[in-house]
Amino acid sequence: MKLRNSIMLGAALAALPVMGLAQDADPNVAPGPSPYILTSLLFLVGGFLVFWMAAGFAMLEAGLVRSKNVTMQLTKNIALFSIAAIMYWLVGYGLMYPGDGWTITGYVGNLFSPASLEPVGVGADGVDTGYASVGSDFFFQLMFCATTASIVSGTLAERIKLWPFLIFVAVLTGIIYPIEASWQWGGGWLSEAGFSDFAGSTLVHAAGGFAALAGAIILGPRLGKYAKDGKVVAMPGSNLALATLGTFILWLGWFGFNGGSQLAMGTIGDITDISRIFANTNMAAAAGAVTCLILTQIVYKKVDLTMVLNGALAGLVSITAGPLDPTLFGALWIGSVGGVIVVFAVPMLDKLKIDDVVGAIPVHLLAGFWGTFAVPFYTEGANFITQIIGFAAIGGFTFVVSLVVWIVLKAAGGIRVSEEAEITGLDTTELGMEAYPEFSRG
Amino acid sequence: MKLRNSIMLGAALAALPVMGLAQDADPNVAPGPSPYILTSLLFLVGGFLVFWMAAGFAMLEAGLVRSKNVTMQLTKNIALFSIAAIMYWLVGYGLMYPGDGWTITGYVGNLFSPASLEPVGVGADGVDTGYASVGSDFFFQLMFCATTASIVSGTLAERIKLWPFLIFVAVLTGIIYPIEASWQWGGGWLSEAGFSDFAGSTLVHAAGGFAALAGAIILGPRLGKYAKDGKVVAMPGSNLALATLGTFILWLGWFGFNGGSQLAMGTIGDITDISRIFANTNMAAAAGAVTCLILTQIVYKKVDLTMVLNGALAGLVSITAGPLDPTLFGALWIGSVGGVIVVFAVPMLDKLKIDDVVGAIPVHLLAGFWGTFAVPFYTEGANFITQIIGFAAIGGFTFVVSLVVWIVLKAAGGIRVSEEAEITGLDTTELGMEAYPEFSRG
Amino acid sequence: MKLRNSIMLGAALAALPVMGLAQDADPNVAPGPSPYILTSLLFLVGGFLVFWMAAGFAMLEAGLVRSKNVTMQLTKNIALFSIAAIMYWLVGYGLMYPGDGWTITGYVGNLFSPASLEPVGVGADGVDTGYASVGSDFFFQLMFCATTASIVSGTLAERIKLWPFLIFVAVLTGIIYPIEASWQWGGGWLSEAGFSDFAGSTLVHAAGGFAALAGAIILGPRLGKYAKDGKVVAMPGSNLALATLGTFILWLGWFGFNGGSQLAMGTIGDITDISRIFANTNMAAAAGAVTCLILTQIVYKKVDLTMVLNGALAGLVSITAGPLDPTLFGALWIGSVGGVIVVFAVPMLDKLKIDDVVGAIPVHLLAGFWGTFAVPFYTEGANFITQIIGFAAIGGFTFVVSLVVWIVLKAAGGIRVSEEAEITGLDTTELGMEAYPEFSRG
Repeated sequence: MKLRNSIMLGAALAALPVMGLAQDADPNVAPGPSPYILTSLLFLVGGFLVFWMAAGFAMLEAGLVRSKNVTMQLTKNIALFSIAAIMYWLVGYGLMYPGDGWTITGYVGNLFSPASLEPVGVGADGVDTGYASVGSDFFFQLMFCATTASIVSGTLAERIKLWPFLIFVAVLTGIIYPIEASWQWGGGWLSEAGFSDFAGSTLVHAAGGFAALAGAIILGPRLGKYAKDGKVVAMPGSNLALATLGTFILWLGWFGFNGGSQLAMGTIGDITDISRIFANTNMAAAAGAVTCLILTQIVYKKVDLTMVLNGALAGLVSITAGPLDPTLFGALWIGSVGGVIVVFAVPMLDKLKIDDVVGAIPVHLLAGFWGTFAVPFYTEGANFITQIIGFAAIGGFTFVVSLVVWIVLKAAGGIRVSEEAEITGLDTTELGMEAYPEFSRG
Repeated sequence: MKLRNSIMLGAALAALPVMGLAQDADPNVAPGPSPYILTSLLFLVGGFLVFWMAAGFAMLEAGLVRSKNVTMQLTKNIALFSIAAIMYWLVGYGLMYPGDGWTITGYVGNLFSPASLEPVGVGADGVDTGYASVGSDFFFQLMFCATTASIVSGTLAERIKLWPFLIFVAVLTGIIYPIEASWQWGGGWLSEAGFSDFAGSTLVHAAGGFAALAGAIILGPRLGKYAKDGKVVAMPGSNLALATLGTFILWLGWFGFNGGSQLAMGTIGDITDISRIFANTNMAAAAGAVTCLILTQIVYKKVDLTMVLNGALAGLVSITAGPLDPTLFGALWIGSVGGVIVVFAVPMLDKLKIDDVVGAIPVHLLAGFWGTFAVPFYTEGANFITQIIGFAAIGGFTFVVSLVVWIVLKAAGGIRVSEEAEITGLDTTELGMEAYPEFSRG
Repeated sequence: MKLRNSIMLGAALAALPVMGLAQDADPNVAPGPSPYILTSLLFLVGGFLVFWMAAGFAMLEAGLVRSKNVTMQLTKNIALFSIAAIMYWLVGYGLMYPGDGWTITGYVGNLFSPASLEPVGVGADGVDTGYASVGSDFFFQLMFCATTASIVSGTLAERIKLWPFLIFVAVLTGIIYPIEASWQWGGGWLSEAGFSDFAGSTLVHAAGGFAALAGAIILGPRLGKYAKDGKVVAMPGSNLALATLGTFILWLGWFGFNGGSQLAMGTIGDITDISRIFANTNMAAAAGAVTCLILTQIVYKKVDLTMVLNGALAGLVSITAGPLDPTLFGALWIGSVGGVIVVFAVPMLDKLKIDDVVGAIPVHLLAGFWGTFAVPFYTEGANFITQIIGFAAIGGFTFVVSLVVWIVLKAAGGIRVSEEAEITGLDTTELGMEAYPEFSRG
């Protein structure tokens, strides 16, 4: 059986005994195979909502880069999702769920077994988990892997070459993400240590953020971003309507991201939990947005839409580690702190001359830390020390391995376009195709 | 138990007796807790579809304003949804469903009780209604409240200040909407009088339209909209692709809006009803669009895309009060009349010098009246007099209270930007951020 | 009972016997009416996802035409969907499912019967199929009909008159599609001959492609597309962000298109199959995109985003005829061949001077053939000869009838705008409304 976290186990155990035993029905559990059907349905609906987040990232990033780099950003986004879909099937899924516990031999063995090449190919009935179809589980898990890669593309926009970026994505989605996620969701050492990360504030969002941070350090800032006199030059996004659309898409997709991570929908308890998760997820996003609305008015005297958008996203990331247990008031203040992080971390990164084009590091890494840290406020059994250890382990591993991959890619052929290409824009120089050929001034 | 309308009661009664009594199964009702799970699932899926409508309004409005005001319109849309999410939790939900019938003491009491602050905080099992989880109900109901506010922002675009608008939204979503909606869906006097408004042609759409109308009157038209010689100056929207996308999003979301309002999915009868609602909702939208297609060709000699879009929306609003009972032919002609209303009401409003930037008053208020009025054609037990009384009561209440709030806001600090800001555009003057900094001419 | 394909029949038979017989439960089937509810739910969720594809086509096409024709393209897209919704109800649905087998008298009789005018009007309980509600079936089937029409609009963009196009759509969705689809999904001769087309690579996609091809031949290429010296003049799309958004929307909607075509969700076997379909559908799209990514780099030395987008779509079309039986590796190589087709067929069409503005013929017709042909590689009982015969029959019928309709329309009043209108752009000349009045240069 494939574990994801401790809640999973309980749900599976609750569902298993009643299969085929309709007469003996626990009134809280539907008789017959309904839990199997309903949980698979949860994975499919949750999965297509998280798929939709790939479009959200594409629109958010296309809206926040300058028009001369929009075609490139769109290309990276559809390509990274597609590569993730293949790499997670080819390597990642088997690596993440080694089957017999997390051991080196476990997944190295699995890596070359036919099963890891065909996780879904288990015959038309395909009942090999007892709680949901393998196809739905694979589909759902794949989307989380792809999300991790989506986070990276925004930070590194407007200056990274296409192919080195895509090679990094292949490594991230095939190897780095599956290994670190397996420590928790594959039943590995972090899950045994009591680390708690319900839907992936650390495993998905902070991991993506660390991979992006490593890339940003090796890649360096965009030309002209940090003037010699220390001034930070604003490079406004070309299409805030797209950026807002992208944020709404991500917000929508997040209901699947967090709600689907309940990993079971066959009992009254499960659907009630999923409902709480939906309500809390929405509240945290709203609180993050309102916080940035008010804070940017106070701090900058003008509301800043891009910060409001990132505030909503930071609220979402903040609640992702523990979307079930908080009250709505809990979701509100946890999401709100996510918004505060955005307002103060964005200028802080600029002081460090780390050029994060869309603000993905504050939103996914820092709010990811906050969300992970905050779990014990509401979740019994979680503790702050383990949360910090888990975050540090995953963050450290992802950062160091990513750094090595970026350094190797840089040495192997370079990861940055020429100065001329960067100034002219990547769309005409690298791809020969403008996103808005009739509109843009440049 | 929380009522929503009479159908709700029937569904709940049908579902309750079988819980835990699988042996005694009515063949029309699944044994065990499936109705509870399925109805909660309906609220979650319906709820995320209605959430998606917030993005639809944002895109529709961003597409129909001029490019100099797009950032402002986007900011208003994401902010109003976020504020609605918080206000409905803090005040509205408790006000709307007072628990012990609609009485002043009922909801004033509730307003300060911990329960109204934590509607979802009823423990992990959370089974306190018998028919669905409170979290899913809260999530679903919240989206209707937010929709009411979305309607207002389009009408008042391009001239209203951000903060007074958001304060109005807080009052509307925290107090005005919950009170008027409680008269019907909270089991109040209108529901007892036999008023029929299945998914909210009056409670949501017309109410939003009346709040917008009150604002438009107090705010006045945009500078230059009505020339001294009486001519109406066209101010074309900046991005019809976005406006069309917004319309498609709203159309999609409406399946959740109307279908979810069945409020039950646990029996053959319920899913059959939801299916009829989906088919009728789609037909009314199509009929509204085709009507405007043909009518604008005849009346103006050229098809007018913005009227076709508004025709689809007016068709949707028209079927919302009674999407279950009409035949498909009924949905067709009811939606079609909605389209007729758009073509003739848009110029009529201009004659009254009421400047409604996106046409929200014809679409939501007038087609909302039409949809409410038309219910008795197909729904047994509904009658035209009660429909008119209900519409007048909710419209009158919403209009008068909104008017007072707008007047107070105007007196308190003004609701309108300066003439200079309006001419230059709200994006640079109020927010310091253009939506399309590289494209726009101005 | 309405058939769709052979799988349908099996699912219906499996579901029927247990209705109302909870005591006698097959452990693989939930007792009580759950299969009825779950299958109807599948049609509703699948249906709204396929509805969403209408928005995807609108955005894809609006992004790939020049800005002077965007309003027209948007108008065509919302109008064609609305007309399809009415025509399929008025004529198509009764024609496609004649009830008593596919005979001329069967559907001519049905055409004028009240039942074909009110397929959903069967009373509030509406239980007349035994496996799902008629309303949900109608809703789902309608979306496939509309998709066929969506395919046509892209090919003929930038030069066809609005009304002749819409008349063609009415004929296509009311008569042509329902007849050819009835041969297979209505239990007609192709289904009896053993033709296999799970979700419509041929019935929907190739049929749409053949209707578009007939139109492109009669209509001729855009002015200036093929220079006298034989050179092909590139006419780049005005908004690649919209085109990418459209592709993501289509990809999302395709989960409903293929997954919903399982036509049953009430058993473990069905949900397991749907899960496989979701995973395979995603894999084929990813493979198509990655193939075009790599191939355009090799062939043109630069990655071509519009080909990557069309590659994803061609991958989706390729897997649509048989999304259930292949392994994930099968989906990968089948989708990948779809991508290859795009890269080589797009320039081939230009050599034939067939001007297909968005590349719909390679994506839907050619990849549709490939997908249909490939079914026997994985599906037992299918054979290559029957697949070719079925494709040829449906393609030939659709092409010839479409050609006749286009010729009649051309003779009756012309289908092409004036040269002047084409040069100036259809938005100002035909509709008097620009999509981006403040941005476009022209």
